[in-house]
Amino acid sequence: MRAVVFEDQLRFTDGAELRPVRDGEVIVDVLKAGICETDLQLCQGYMGFRGTLGHEFVGIARSGRFTGRRVVGEINCPCRTCELCRNGLGNHCPERTVVGIVAHDGAFADSLLIPEANLHEVPAHVSDEEAVFVEPLAAACRIPEQIALNGGERVTILGDGRLGNLCAQVLGSHGCDVRVVGKHDFKLSVLGALGIATIRLEQLLPERSADLVVDCTGSPSGLGLALQLVRPCGTIVLKTTVAAVQTLHMAPFVIDEIRLLGSRCGPFDKALNLLSRGAISVTPLLSATYPLEMAEAAFAHAVRKDALKVLFAVRS
Amino acid sequence: MRAVVFEDQLRFTDGAELRPVRDGEVIVDVLKAGICETDLQLCQGYMGFRGTLGHEFVGIARSGRFTGRRVVGEINCPCRTCELCRNGLGNHCPERTVVGIVAHDGAFADSLLIPEANLHEVPAHVSDEEAVFVEPLAAACRIPEQIALNGGERVTILGDGRLGNLCAQVLGSHGCDVRVVGKHDFKLSVLGALGIATIRLEQLLPERSADLVVDCTGSPSGLGLALQLVRPCGTIVLKTTVAAVQTLHMAPFVIDEIRLLGSRCGPFDKALNLLSRGAISVTPLLSATYPLEMAEAAFAHAVRKDALKVLFAVRS
Repeated sequence: MRAVVFEDQLRFTDGAELRPVRDGEVIVDVLKAGICETDLQLCQGYMGFRGTLGHEFVGIARSGRFTGRRVVGEINCPCRTCELCRNGLGNHCPERTVVGIVAHDGAFADSLLIPEANLHEVPAHVSDEEAVFVEPLAAACRIPEQIALNGGERVTILGDGRLGNLCAQVLGSHGCDVRVVGKHDFKLSVLGALGIATIRLEQLLPERSADLVVDCTGSPSGLGLALQLVRPCGTIVLKTTVAAVQTLHMAPFVIDEIRLLGSRCGPFDKALNLLSRGAISVTPLLSATYPLEMAEAAFAHAVRKDALKVLFAVRS
Repeated sequence: MRAVVFEDQLRFTDGAELRPVRDGEVIVDVLKAGICETDLQLCQGYMGFRGTLGHEFVGIARSGRFTGRRVVGEINCPCRTCELCRNGLGNHCPERTVVGIVAHDGAFADSLLIPEANLHEVPAHVSDEEAVFVEPLAAACRIPEQIALNGGERVTILGDGRLGNLCAQVLGSHGCDVRVVGKHDFKLSVLGALGIATIRLEQLLPERSADLVVDCTGSPSGLGLALQLVRPCGTIVLKTTVAAVQTLHMAPFVIDEIRLLGSRCGPFDKALNLLSRGAISVTPLLSATYPLEMAEAAFAHAVRKDALKVLFAVRS
């Protein structure tokens, strides 16, 4: 079958094969799949991944109880037996594989293998293009799972990219007073058209007034900036991993009693619900669609500063 | 009057004078006062403080509604009018002075000035020596104010000193399963005699199983060690300020969704209540008592590795 693999470098192949199906797994035939910031980092050597990339997808189940139906899939594949799994923390299972990220071939391919328990059916009125956003949208929905929001919180989101946009929409849907800090005209204009307040990085004042700052920059400078913007007893959410070591003065965390919260994967059911009832607009984030054969061009597009979400159309 | 002041260096003086009393302030005649880690840091130049040191004290109010009664005093003196003060965050008021720490002469003196609103009366059956511990004990009580504890949480406390000991006792009184990591035989034996589980630093295994890790080390290495001990989705509380810049890999915070929480001053009423009903034993932490005139000897004692709490007896 066709697949986009990363070994020493990114390449398209027409000779990939699915490994044998394991207990509880099903085959999903991919319809569309999205390129994520993590995919770009994996191509820089992050996590030492080798194999088929891709963890944002919508497809049609070829086996199991969802056979013939349109599904999206959670990416963490836990052992379901260890203490963390038994305590409901399967996303943190130390034995887990992660679709397209850790020891598990991903969705930039004709088909992938995934535990049936990871699948969620996509409602008929949610399009394929929208469904590809369920995984990153779920990651944005993780924030209100971790923090009790009453509405009215002053939220500053650092980063005008894909994830910053989705976090802004999700937190706005929870009644927060959201503004996004960015430096890309096009991405800021997309946010503006969605009715979200924006401010350019160079116009930002270091007034420490935000109840919540969400760092979606993927940059080592994000956390230091967040510390300049968050109020005493406020919260900073780290949403993107930064591979580099950071140098930081930790005393302000104690003196100002700042809360720092790492945030990763989130609830697919809540993301599907938001899409299903039209509470979130993801189609303005679509930048381009490529066939698997044009993997290099697709990845080159995804790193452009004016790109939001680049998709692979695997089959129609 | 007599006072222990820090200017270029620590010294005892018999010629100090109280500044004029401001609105809402009262005079407190000091009975006993305790030396804190922060005092030792202030003598290293931390916060650029100059003036009379001391923020842990018990005394007798000479004016106001507590006249003639035994009192302890909260150390943050907020403006009571800014937005943070109006939102109940007076401890974080940007205009605040802090007794013996920021622009406010402290309690290593015959008398000090302090807002009457900061005072709490000490119950008759709580001794002077115990009452000196209200300020650091309140700081330990800040943790259960910030984190919902159900009891049974696996808590690892890093540091066997004054604050580590008090945090261990407070979290133990909340039903947590507490162990303290330390490297000082005497301090570990004090904890052991209080019925608290201890482990020596060199015997510690990096098993990531603690629900909560409290860093009371005052060392830049504390946070890195905490990250090796906390479970995914667990919490690290930073209880001591480290003046130095730290170099840290932040990716684990995101991948493992760790929560980091700075924690500073706490509720005096809860600390007094714990002491009043004998839920916390502070007298085993008393190392020595000195007169103000022996300030240098007292401070030299407080930095000794076998010292817990060193007091000044100002008057009896």
